[in-house]
Amino acid sequence: MADTPAARPVEPVAPIDPAVVAHVAQVATAARTASRGLALLTRARKDELLHAVADALVAATPDIVAGNAEDLARGRERGLAAGLLDRLLLDEQRIAAIAAAVRDVAALPDPVGEVVRGSTLANGLQIRQVRVPMGVVGMIYEARPNVTVDAAALALKSGNAVLLRGGSAAASSNRVLVAAIRTALRGQGLDEHAVASLDDGGRDAARALMTARGLVDLVIPRGGADLIATVVRESTVPVIETGTGVNHVYVDEAADLDQATAIVLNSKAQRPSVCNAAETLLVHERVAEAFLPKVLAALGGAGVTVHAGPEVLEFADAAGAAVLPAQDGDFTREWYSLDLGVRVVPDLDAALTHIRTHGTQHTEVVVTRDRGVARRFQAEVDAAVVVVNASSRFTDGGEFGFGAEIGISTQKLHARGPMALPELTTTKWLVDGDGQVRT
Amino acid sequence: MADTPAARPVEPVAPIDPAVVAHVAQVATAARTASRGLALLTRARKDELLHAVADALVAATPDIVAGNAEDLARGRERGLAAGLLDRLLLDEQRIAAIAAAVRDVAALPDPVGEVVRGSTLANGLQIRQVRVPMGVVGMIYEARPNVTVDAAALALKSGNAVLLRGGSAAASSNRVLVAAIRTALRGQGLDEHAVASLDDGGRDAARALMTARGLVDLVIPRGGADLIATVVRESTVPVIETGTGVNHVYVDEAADLDQATAIVLNSKAQRPSVCNAAETLLVHERVAEAFLPKVLAALGGAGVTVHAGPEVLEFADAAGAAVLPAQDGDFTREWYSLDLGVRVVPDLDAALTHIRTHGTQHTEVVVTRDRGVARRFQAEVDAAVVVVNASSRFTDGGEFGFGAEIGISTQKLHARGPMALPELTTTKWLVDGDGQVRT
Repeated sequence: MADTPAARPVEPVAPIDPAVVAHVAQVATAARTASRGLALLTRARKDELLHAVADALVAATPDIVAGNAEDLARGRERGLAAGLLDRLLLDEQRIAAIAAAVRDVAALPDPVGEVVRGSTLANGLQIRQVRVPMGVVGMIYEARPNVTVDAAALALKSGNAVLLRGGSAAASSNRVLVAAIRTALRGQGLDEHAVASLDDGGRDAARALMTARGLVDLVIPRGGADLIATVVRESTVPVIETGTGVNHVYVDEAADLDQATAIVLNSKAQRPSVCNAAETLLVHERVAEAFLPKVLAALGGAGVTVHAGPEVLEFADAAGAAVLPAQDGDFTREWYSLDLGVRVVPDLDAALTHIRTHGTQHTEVVVTRDRGVARRFQAEVDAAVVVVNASSRFTDGGEFGFGAEIGISTQKLHARGPMALPELTTTKWLVDGDGQVRT
Repeated sequence: MADTPAARPVEPVAPIDPAVVAHVAQVATAARTASRGLALLTRARKDELLHAVADALVAATPDIVAGNAEDLARGRERGLAAGLLDRLLLDEQRIAAIAAAVRDVAALPDPVGEVVRGSTLANGLQIRQVRVPMGVVGMIYEARPNVTVDAAALALKSGNAVLLRGGSAAASSNRVLVAAIRTALRGQGLDEHAVASLDDGGRDAARALMTARGLVDLVIPRGGADLIATVVRESTVPVIETGTGVNHVYVDEAADLDQATAIVLNSKAQRPSVCNAAETLLVHERVAEAFLPKVLAALGGAGVTVHAGPEVLEFADAAGAAVLPAQDGDFTREWYSLDLGVRVVPDLDAALTHIRTHGTQHTEVVVTRDRGVARRFQAEVDAAVVVVNASSRFTDGGEFGFGAEIGISTQKLHARGPMALPELTTTKWLVDGDGQVRT
């Protein structure tokens, strides 16, 4: 986690069930073999495959709905919240939308083969750095069957095999979805082991996946903070950390206050359950009196509960919003809900310090008309996306024009911010000579 | 490791001494604070700093030589091999060369601030992906005091703080070198904690560095296979795996045999102690009779011991080379010496299978005049660098024209092949709006 305060000792970890390790190694080895074929497919063949996948998903609609009904029944028995049940639900319309998204991926440019850089050396050697698939990508996520298909489509388009660990809550749905994708692979004369599910084997299957170094090239966890922290701690396979967004909107003394109100409202309330929503509002003290009544009223109107620092409480009466005194930890929480921390800060430096201390290096926003403040904020804030005068909600592969998104990286290695197809590739240097040797 | 045959269970790891963890956290926190200042320096200021570092190293020559003498004395007591003692040795001439290398780094372009990509979205948002420093980089390496200065220079040029763990054998040299670099930092009015040594604290200091996630952004291990495997296994900080090169030269049936002889000789014997040297020669059976006597004689002339597969032994008499029957494991060893495994293969497919099974995805070479063979080899071999008709020894930041090298990545995430300044940076998305919100 970006905000870990200090190094900590490594704790002993229980060994993984050897039978599960062997099973995962077998599935990963088969995926690895399949990935070699995928890496050599032309774009035309990959697009054809993706359309076949979409067709297979539509054709399997009754089976998918039946499998999904099992997951929903199990979820209801376990008392899953209505929101989670809705996230799990697949009906004919949603399956059609998932299939359409696969066709959209087919329409995206192929990152494989792109020449990133190259030159001819003094000795005549021609060198080119070319994008190639990663090989085998592992996805670990939670109870979102649409991610199963999304991840498979993006992996196949970028020439990768994929191992999917989707969580037990969606296991029946995922089984049928993966079966449909494999039907399409076979129908195209390709190796069906390119897409495999690892939903069986309990938690040890996920742990065996994270430690299958040499068989798996990359693991991407998508889900809550606990899931991501576990993968980061236990994985020996390279990981791209995604997700957690404790994002701030800082309203500077030189802000346009109407614009600031609209940005705060949109950043918090347009879709509070996602990682690019804002969790804390910081207000320069010189505009507190003018801005807070206005923004608290707007937040109240949108049903937002404000967790207010002491300097904010005095404006609470005018608010028409639910305003609670902020508790310990309220400024480091990712609420995922219509809750917002609000603090007054004396100046830009204090805002930068607050963001450095509490932020997760995801998305940070400043609202200001002052060019110097904007420049300093963008230079000094260390985050994947640093925004001037717009909503935090734009941190998104679709919004950025990538046409897709496999996650939002909050780490610095390999990818940072929204990730799409190029982030699922690595590169290879091709060197072409006519007998050169070193002297 | 790229050639790990299967997933393995995680073994319990002993806890790290809490006092060492606390010390490393303190040093890393100070480096982190210093890194914020470095990230904002202009190129001109960074180049000025690097020239000051070079000056300070030259001025400290007597101290460096004295510190180095302590390491050499300790090394002799412990019976270090002559080659290792020579690697450790610093004299006036070598210190001058190290200082000159720092000035060369100053002359390189600054990667920070480069706009990697950008666009204006339909809603008028301007987005730019810009290179920024990683923050704090950890280097874990073995008994090469020149790496201490190299790594510090490359880190500072790319705006990063650096934590150096150079191994006990060079501890006294490193202490004096780091002191000289810190003198230059102070002389430039900069925070000296930007460069720090972690040679004290035993093995636990290295382990605390690898697990200081949130304080350290990246760890690069440079050294033997054991060191690298330990870092990969224990680190929770993102790692770039470097190094191990079990590299092959495949001489195809359509090879120019004189060219092939020169390439094999250069790949093996020009500098056998480095990771881009070749370890195994694969020869197509159709040219075995014509090629083997020629290449074995050339290898013999260069003092190379050949570890021969059974099909090669019949040509041993003509060799004038030391030819031994290959033992188990000879084709997975990185010799680091004038030893070469030699095998005859029936065809390209067998060569590709051998490379896939025994290679470490570092550098692979084919010698052929057949365009189809070259194309297949470059497409199907999964390695950082795939060479047609040239020596494996060109896998090098200097040879590739990067002007520097911090290591050669054999992993797929973030960087692959020779790494220089851009590989020590991450990116940040800057988004500029005038009030945009999502609808």
